[in-house]
Amino acid sequence: MNTILYPSREKWAEILQRPAVNPFELEETCKTICEEIIKHGDDILRKYTWYFDRVKLDDIEEPEEEIQESASLVDPDLQQAIRNAKKNIEAFHRLQLSAPKTYVNENGFRCWQEERPIEKVGLYIPGGNAPLFSTVLMLCIPANIAGCKEIFLCTPPGKDGKINPAILWTARLCGVTRIFKVGGIQAIGALAIGTETIPKVDKIFGPGNHFVTAAKQWVTRYRTAIDMPAGPSEIMIVSDDSATPAYIAADLLSQAEHGPDSQAILVTNREDIAIRVKQETERQLGELPQGSMAFKAQEHIRLIVLNDLEECIEMVNQYAPEHLILNIRDYLSFTKKVQHAGSVFLGNYSPESAGDYASGTNHTLPTNGYARSYSGITVDAFRKKISFQEIFREGLSYLGNTIETMAANELLEAHRKAVSIRLKEEPLK
Amino acid sequence: MNTILYPSREKWAEILQRPAVNPFELEETCKTICEEIIKHGDDILRKYTWYFDRVKLDDIEEPEEEIQESASLVDPDLQQAIRNAKKNIEAFHRLQLSAPKTYVNENGFRCWQEERPIEKVGLYIPGGNAPLFSTVLMLCIPANIAGCKEIFLCTPPGKDGKINPAILWTARLCGVTRIFKVGGIQAIGALAIGTETIPKVDKIFGPGNHFVTAAKQWVTRYRTAIDMPAGPSEIMIVSDDSATPAYIAADLLSQAEHGPDSQAILVTNREDIAIRVKQETERQLGELPQGSMAFKAQEHIRLIVLNDLEECIEMVNQYAPEHLILNIRDYLSFTKKVQHAGSVFLGNYSPESAGDYASGTNHTLPTNGYARSYSGITVDAFRKKISFQEIFREGLSYLGNTIETMAANELLEAHRKAVSIRLKEEPLK
Repeated sequence: MNTILYPSREKWAEILQRPAVNPFELEETCKTICEEIIKHGDDILRKYTWYFDRVKLDDIEEPEEEIQESASLVDPDLQQAIRNAKKNIEAFHRLQLSAPKTYVNENGFRCWQEERPIEKVGLYIPGGNAPLFSTVLMLCIPANIAGCKEIFLCTPPGKDGKINPAILWTARLCGVTRIFKVGGIQAIGALAIGTETIPKVDKIFGPGNHFVTAAKQWVTRYRTAIDMPAGPSEIMIVSDDSATPAYIAADLLSQAEHGPDSQAILVTNREDIAIRVKQETERQLGELPQGSMAFKAQEHIRLIVLNDLEECIEMVNQYAPEHLILNIRDYLSFTKKVQHAGSVFLGNYSPESAGDYASGTNHTLPTNGYARSYSGITVDAFRKKISFQEIFREGLSYLGNTIETMAANELLEAHRKAVSIRLKEEPLK
Repeated sequence: MNTILYPSREKWAEILQRPAVNPFELEETCKTICEEIIKHGDDILRKYTWYFDRVKLDDIEEPEEEIQESASLVDPDLQQAIRNAKKNIEAFHRLQLSAPKTYVNENGFRCWQEERPIEKVGLYIPGGNAPLFSTVLMLCIPANIAGCKEIFLCTPPGKDGKINPAILWTARLCGVTRIFKVGGIQAIGALAIGTETIPKVDKIFGPGNHFVTAAKQWVTRYRTAIDMPAGPSEIMIVSDDSATPAYIAADLLSQAEHGPDSQAILVTNREDIAIRVKQETERQLGELPQGSMAFKAQEHIRLIVLNDLEECIEMVNQYAPEHLILNIRDYLSFTKKVQHAGSVFLGNYSPESAGDYASGTNHTLPTNGYARSYSGITVDAFRKKISFQEIFREGLSYLGNTIETMAANELLEAHRKAVSIRLKEEPLK
């Protein structure tokens, strides 16, 4: 943990530095695996599942029996919790559907947009020690509300060759079409390219380690879209004297336990708060289980004291954090000033874990400063817009001169003629 | 021109094939130029402007005097045409702004989204024989409506070292902040990385040749977003016996004149229409200026006859064209069946050039099959969404058990504690 008092603005960039990522590092590996998938399909998925996950894969696709069986293997309390979360996530995401509006020009034409679901989507759920069923909720629910026809899920099998029942049960609950027991670069490659078993999809979603992240970036070469580039998870907390240091410490640690690269930063206008947060963080760290990632990540925790809250918000906008907690008295008067952030939590009783799981907002968010240009996952990410225009003869007469003048000046004679040929004659029929 | 009668479905993929693009071809060049920009900044822009464009660049930034002077150099008729087009484009794009909706849970919490403009955007306008001022309109207007603070424009200088006045005048009219006389890979690299003169932007927009396209894809490594990958322009026209062959021929040729790689495809349920369109296309080709690109591109024109209109729409959805003209009698009953397309033109009097210039819809659209997953440029492309949540103590009590159960099952103990620490005590203050 590092406390930094009243740094000058020239120092901000250095203080806010994120862990460097070498974007080229894994490209050769991604290229090799993708080219092998193109040539040999499923066999390559088996090969790398053995190589990376040490699992001999018979069925690439999760069999229906095991999906059904999951209902009896998931603790009923957890099932109820997942159902509760689903209700809020659905309600929040349903509000994101928007009705098309039409521009009617009274001179004889109209233009409008219509939305369509992206037909085939691939969702990636990382493996690891714990089953990330919450990410299943966060990806499947908007895909379903968007109306995607085919929702495929890839996740690496555990050491026993199986997918955790909580993942299977949540996937079924949320309407996933098919589930594949493949992870890592080979899963992303398969979804982008297609194999005998795994269909090629139009867009790939979901978090992952640096292999998955590199693969997602790589496969955009194969006419596949991706949700967003990803980096280590981050939180920035802004607090004044209305904040409870113990809560802030808990939030910093909940971020830190995501992994050794996690970024957790407090920005405050009160030196005493920084001191008490430091003490509390050290105390609470002692209460966490031995193996917690938070022990490693706590060295990245930064406690920064600035002159006032305005300056704190400036720092927020420079950093563009994935998660932002505004733990300040008058938070609603500051929300409009937040320009760059993924998800914002307001006040003393809005911990990040509420948004991670159950309040309804999405937890798949832009990291690594990408909050400057990307939104988190919304229903929109699973849809696209088509524009339509209906021009009547009078409308084209009205627009004709404008189009012809512009086309002529861009030296596009056939563009001009497509209008003039329609106008020179009397209307047909 | 190639006429294909009643092809079997197995043949469709082959018939609809697009020109192959090698995504790796230009990567080494992009890498080299970007790495040079990181080291030497502006000097490298001058170097490659000499190397590729044969122009000795003194000022990288377009001087204010020349921008002002452009008003006296652009034909007043063209100025009026551009103003007319701007009015429709603005009206159509303003409808895309949406009001945030809030999910209020009566148990004590609420979640909502707010939109923010992407702060700094870079717009690329290709060079070439003609000044593409229409693309300036199509990129600047939504950027401005979105509220982007800094709108930078890059375009290669002409042989005389200058930017065409029509580009300058349109850029000023639409509120571009600064204009740079740089094109190609070096322009995209500069916008992504930043130099002494050109600021780093958050997102890059705009069409370009295969150098620009490769560079846009490449620079996503530098924490820059791009609008969409691009390929050669395309049109698909669906017609029945209500269509006028001469209009269809004009539309096919207006697509063909974009470049030798342009794709123009007619799909019809009437053999006689295909024959007459072929004759008309050959006739109209004779009326185009000698140097027209349409001569080269016409060999790619395909006239496909299918059994009925339902089958035609299926082929549309398999191809996912950038532009689609539904030149059929009962077009409104088919719009809902169109799943994948960039922009759709309805009836006899909606030529593509209307949408290219003046009806109000955007002409920057997904090509190369990307209409399966991407929208054309909208105001949304220049904005991003931030989610907010405000949870009161009662709200957290209500959600607490759900969050704690889920966190515990994902083995994220600190996530669980961030909730329990807030609930275990009496409310503070």
